[in-house]
Amino acid sequence: MIKIGIVGGTGYTGVELLRLLAQHPQANVHAITSRKDAGTKVADMFASLRGRYDLAFTDPAQTDLKSCDIVFFATPHGVAMAQARELVSAGVKIIDLAADFRLADPAEFERWYKMPHACVDLLEEAVYGIPEINREKIRKARIVGNPGCYPTAVQLGFLPLIEAGAVDTDHLIADAKSGVSGAGRKAELNLNLAEAGDNFAAYGVKGHRHLPEIVQGLNRASRKKVRLAFTPHLVPMIRGILATLYAPLTGDVDLQALYEKRYAGEPFVDVMPEGSAPDTRSVRASNVLRIAVHRPPGTDLARVIAVEDNLVKGAAGQAIQNMNLMFGLPETTGLTAPPVLP
Amino acid sequence: MIKIGIVGGTGYTGVELLRLLAQHPQANVHAITSRKDAGTKVADMFASLRGRYDLAFTDPAQTDLKSCDIVFFATPHGVAMAQARELVSAGVKIIDLAADFRLADPAEFERWYKMPHACVDLLEEAVYGIPEINREKIRKARIVGNPGCYPTAVQLGFLPLIEAGAVDTDHLIADAKSGVSGAGRKAELNLNLAEAGDNFAAYGVKGHRHLPEIVQGLNRASRKKVRLAFTPHLVPMIRGILATLYAPLTGDVDLQALYEKRYAGEPFVDVMPEGSAPDTRSVRASNVLRIAVHRPPGTDLARVIAVEDNLVKGAAGQAIQNMNLMFGLPETTGLTAPPVLP
Amino acid sequence: MIKIGIVGGTGYTGVELLRLLAQHPQANVHAITSRKDAGTKVADMFASLRGRYDLAFTDPAQTDLKSCDIVFFATPHGVAMAQARELVSAGVKIIDLAADFRLADPAEFERWYKMPHACVDLLEEAVYGIPEINREKIRKARIVGNPGCYPTAVQLGFLPLIEAGAVDTDHLIADAKSGVSGAGRKAELNLNLAEAGDNFAAYGVKGHRHLPEIVQGLNRASRKKVRLAFTPHLVPMIRGILATLYAPLTGDVDLQALYEKRYAGEPFVDVMPEGSAPDTRSVRASNVLRIAVHRPPGTDLARVIAVEDNLVKGAAGQAIQNMNLMFGLPETTGLTAPPVLP
Amino acid sequence: MIKIGIVGGTGYTGVELLRLLAQHPQANVHAITSRKDAGTKVADMFASLRGRYDLAFTDPAQTDLKSCDIVFFATPHGVAMAQARELVSAGVKIIDLAADFRLADPAEFERWYKMPHACVDLLEEAVYGIPEINREKIRKARIVGNPGCYPTAVQLGFLPLIEAGAVDTDHLIADAKSGVSGAGRKAELNLNLAEAGDNFAAYGVKGHRHLPEIVQGLNRASRKKVRLAFTPHLVPMIRGILATLYAPLTGDVDLQALYEKRYAGEPFVDVMPEGSAPDTRSVRASNVLRIAVHRPPGTDLARVIAVEDNLVKGAAGQAIQNMNLMFGLPETTGLTAPPVLP
Repeated sequence: MIKIGIVGGTGYTGVELLRLLAQHPQANVHAITSRKDAGTKVADMFASLRGRYDLAFTDPAQTDLKSCDIVFFATPHGVAMAQARELVSAGVKIIDLAADFRLADPAEFERWYKMPHACVDLLEEAVYGIPEINREKIRKARIVGNPGCYPTAVQLGFLPLIEAGAVDTDHLIADAKSGVSGAGRKAELNLNLAEAGDNFAAYGVKGHRHLPEIVQGLNRASRKKVRLAFTPHLVPMIRGILATLYAPLTGDVDLQALYEKRYAGEPFVDVMPEGSAPDTRSVRASNVLRIAVHRPPGTDLARVIAVEDNLVKGAAGQAIQNMNLMFGLPETTGLTAPPVLP
Repeated sequence: MIKIGIVGGTGYTGVELLRLLAQHPQANVHAITSRKDAGTKVADMFASLRGRYDLAFTDPAQTDLKSCDIVFFATPHGVAMAQARELVSAGVKIIDLAADFRLADPAEFERWYKMPHACVDLLEEAVYGIPEINREKIRKARIVGNPGCYPTAVQLGFLPLIEAGAVDTDHLIADAKSGVSGAGRKAELNLNLAEAGDNFAAYGVKGHRHLPEIVQGLNRASRKKVRLAFTPHLVPMIRGILATLYAPLTGDVDLQALYEKRYAGEPFVDVMPEGSAPDTRSVRASNVLRIAVHRPPGTDLARVIAVEDNLVKGAAGQAIQNMNLMFGLPETTGLTAPPVLP
Repeated sequence: MIKIGIVGGTGYTGVELLRLLAQHPQANVHAITSRKDAGTKVADMFASLRGRYDLAFTDPAQTDLKSCDIVFFATPHGVAMAQARELVSAGVKIIDLAADFRLADPAEFERWYKMPHACVDLLEEAVYGIPEINREKIRKARIVGNPGCYPTAVQLGFLPLIEAGAVDTDHLIADAKSGVSGAGRKAELNLNLAEAGDNFAAYGVKGHRHLPEIVQGLNRASRKKVRLAFTPHLVPMIRGILATLYAPLTGDVDLQALYEKRYAGEPFVDVMPEGSAPDTRSVRASNVLRIAVHRPPGTDLARVIAVEDNLVKGAAGQAIQNMNLMFGLPETTGLTAPPVLP
Repeated sequence: MIKIGIVGGTGYTGVELLRLLAQHPQANVHAITSRKDAGTKVADMFASLRGRYDLAFTDPAQTDLKSCDIVFFATPHGVAMAQARELVSAGVKIIDLAADFRLADPAEFERWYKMPHACVDLLEEAVYGIPEINREKIRKARIVGNPGCYPTAVQLGFLPLIEAGAVDTDHLIADAKSGVSGAGRKAELNLNLAEAGDNFAAYGVKGHRHLPEIVQGLNRASRKKVRLAFTPHLVPMIRGILATLYAPLTGDVDLQALYEKRYAGEPFVDVMPEGSAPDTRSVRASNVLRIAVHRPPGTDLARVIAVEDNLVKGAAGQAIQNMNLMFGLPETTGLTAPPVLP
């Protein structure tokens, strides 16, 4: 059994970790912290977990995390990097579901998150946690920066095209749409059902924190600097991200074959048949990312559609996939429940 | 392994059976039939099942169901009773998720379903499949009539009050609300998102087929004829039933203790703490029914709120719970995944 | 033209007043206040009003309201009663959309709103603003307490039965369902689309502030004390209230005729044909309340279903209906736009 | 008063025409036809119109349309062109809300709609009904082909860029998102709330009928052949279209000024301030199209966001705007009700 700590467990990624770990045969959730809700039973905050966890939230200052095998940070940005050194020194592995270990360049981190990075040396050894890109590094990692929800879909969507050099990387477009759970478990007026319901809009039109993370990944894949327009939109639904990606083709290429080959054998990436239009519900509550690729009629563009559950493959599920790798377990352990449809 | 056949697998109860059975360690889905979609792969109709089932729908006439251990009927009313005799004679157990084996009185069946009952003798031996009422009978049953979604919530909600003789059974009220999946996987104008979305209404105000089923159950519990007003409403959501039940109290009773005692040890009935208001999402995609009981201030009424997922405890999950009993398995086998929240 | 002031215009009742008054041929919105957003243009906060209002929110302390003909309070409870005396003395009429002038008994007010009433003498002269009950008094009123959203639907729903003495008023039940805009324009976690969407629950099960208001109205109609169970529920939709009302019949009565007669000639109460089940969208964005009445089969109960738009007939629309009466205008002035369906 | 006939009034464009015409001071709806529902009162099908129309649907064969001043066709494709000659000969003006008079090239029509065009000479004189492009021609037209919902948003969105020659028209992208009412008032499984709710997907990925209509308009504006990728998506909401448009800039241009100038004085096109992200609810139930234009950081692309209500500016509202022009009325007559928010 893996002894697990979760820091900051009252958000959606926290409760999703708990939901998924309840089905994981090797998981033993030892502690879950919350400064604000210390003392409250997990099952009193989330009725869905009644009968599943007897655990209460504990104050982080008074919680023994150093005896854990692994600690997940499901916290706001800045928390994981403050505690990482002590835990890593104690031999505890870390998966941060926030942004502290995503951007390799500390200046980029500071620019977008408005705080200096607290442990640049650890950042250097941290591995960016997309198994389909960094599987071997993740197996050996002590610290994994778990990717953002949009970046997972957009990078995995573009990757085969870019790795193959099949597109003009100066004109990449990611038109992305997310359910509201992507904004977190927050009291915000713009997320109120009376505001976000029966409504559709773009947001972050002046710049979004996931842009540098995506660009970093695409730069690595293309081995040069890409240019990307990234437009996130808010969909009146709870879970799910759909990214519609466009890139000018530089030559003739069998798009379907390219994608099938790149993701052959991947347990959590499903390349759909030609002409498909995957919907977000087909991956609801599961760790699968489904993907389709087309050339729209009359154009010289590649168009990719990638769907994922933002809380699973876009957050907690991918974190557990990473944990499985880090502990030598089969990668799909605990992640086999089918999507919930309808 | 239990060799399983599913007749009529293209509706929501069919696909929900498939979703749940994919997580059941003893289930081997041998065949799934559909007259209309014979030849289509299950995973081509339901992308959520890609990689889970290699099975295709087969024509019922050409499908060997008699070699199965059990056959689920996820069909329109009238299908199961036409095939029951042949299967039962071959030693196959049957769980009908439609109404053929729910109403003990064939005249009642004919009155509400507009067709004569095809096998009255089998109807007599059939067991009504609510384990919390008929557990021992279900264990030995050859035929189980799996309850309707509303009847499960309303009966389990009223039961402790009625069994205890604590209420006036001449003035029972069940004000029930259901997500649209309860109407089935159908192309119907009134279920169109542009009609049912951002909208709320009652329906079936002149009479609903679940009324006689509920009344039958409450009559049995009270050992006399009850009178019930049943008002179903359509909620703009996908899954979930919430039933708000009212009954005049005939004396003083500790409602909370009554409910906790009645359902002590039940793995799938969760009596919430006093003052609770359970929400449907707390049981989404799970087999749990949560229940709260109050006495509204200033009244001599008992008020019960019961929530379930109409496709799980209200249909496919309860069917699998029944199957587990019929095959001597632990009752919760394959039904342990926590609810999906948010 | 009627010179109008609105105090507290940034909530949903405020913006709904602005939407409706933009279509009112006699309305001149002179000032709209907001302590927090003073200086912001109305159309910058609500893009839907771009091109309709050039007005900015002003600080209440620096706003000349005494030159207005009428002032609407679309504020939290407690604000209107603090400013009422000064305005009334200056000859300004007042319609309070909060609760300050709804409950005739100041002790009841204090009990439910946790503050003493600031002007008991004005409370005495204030008229409860349901035109279908108090039309003549409203015409002459200086202060109108505009009813709550639930109380409008529940009172108008029960009224014909109670006035006719046709039901046992010791066992009244109001099972009510509201869209989330009824909770106001607020950043609250439980209203977040990821929490309230695809979900259904009761709330306020221990008591809701609209209960004493409803009971007050029903007491007046029945000339004795009624007993009422009131259960509000939250529906995952934006606008709309549906109240399902139950009462034991005390004798034989032609329910349909009773309702049609009571509301004959009412411009905003529509008694539907027998057997109807009105839906909330049939009144969306309009001032109409639609109502149906049945006797559920097999019972001696009357069941009433009443639907309204909580922001219109349940708030801003009824306020304008009251204003029309107070200024001698045709009651429907500015309120004639049909409901928005779909 | 304008004497109006509506052919095929039971769909969403039909009922939306009725809703809007009820507020039009010059409109006299003389007849509304429906083959299937002849004899049914309009208000019996659409409860929202109770008390607004006494009219019943009539059989088209038995309806005197030739005495009308104008006839709207809110029918499936192919109906208007079959009846146009007779009506036009009788001096009746025609606005077709289907596709019969949208595509100038009859071969294009036949290719996409799978039927030969029935009156090529009338097609030649028909005017494409976007007033912001063809205002003067519409004033004099006998036949107007009212645009599709997507084409209105996409053309008005791209127009300033293309007219100014500011973009590379070989790489245009229209990533469009629509509420489900855009699919019409239909019983279709994929529109069922249990399928389309809490879900998001693209559709028509192999080609959509609105593509040739959009391309025709953009070709006219650019005076050469453009290349466009058009990807429609289905949003779980009722009304509203949001189109996110991308085009590579060919030089430096003040995008904001370009748009403000192009649409100066337009009553129904609202260019939002720089940095805006208009949402669909800001135009709900109104004839306004709101538009924002940006250059995404780090790119040489123009990005346009255009929102409209697909049933109003995208259908019935624009039709009435056209009617106003054809009859010499102020263009905004009957179209002044503000959007419904929330």
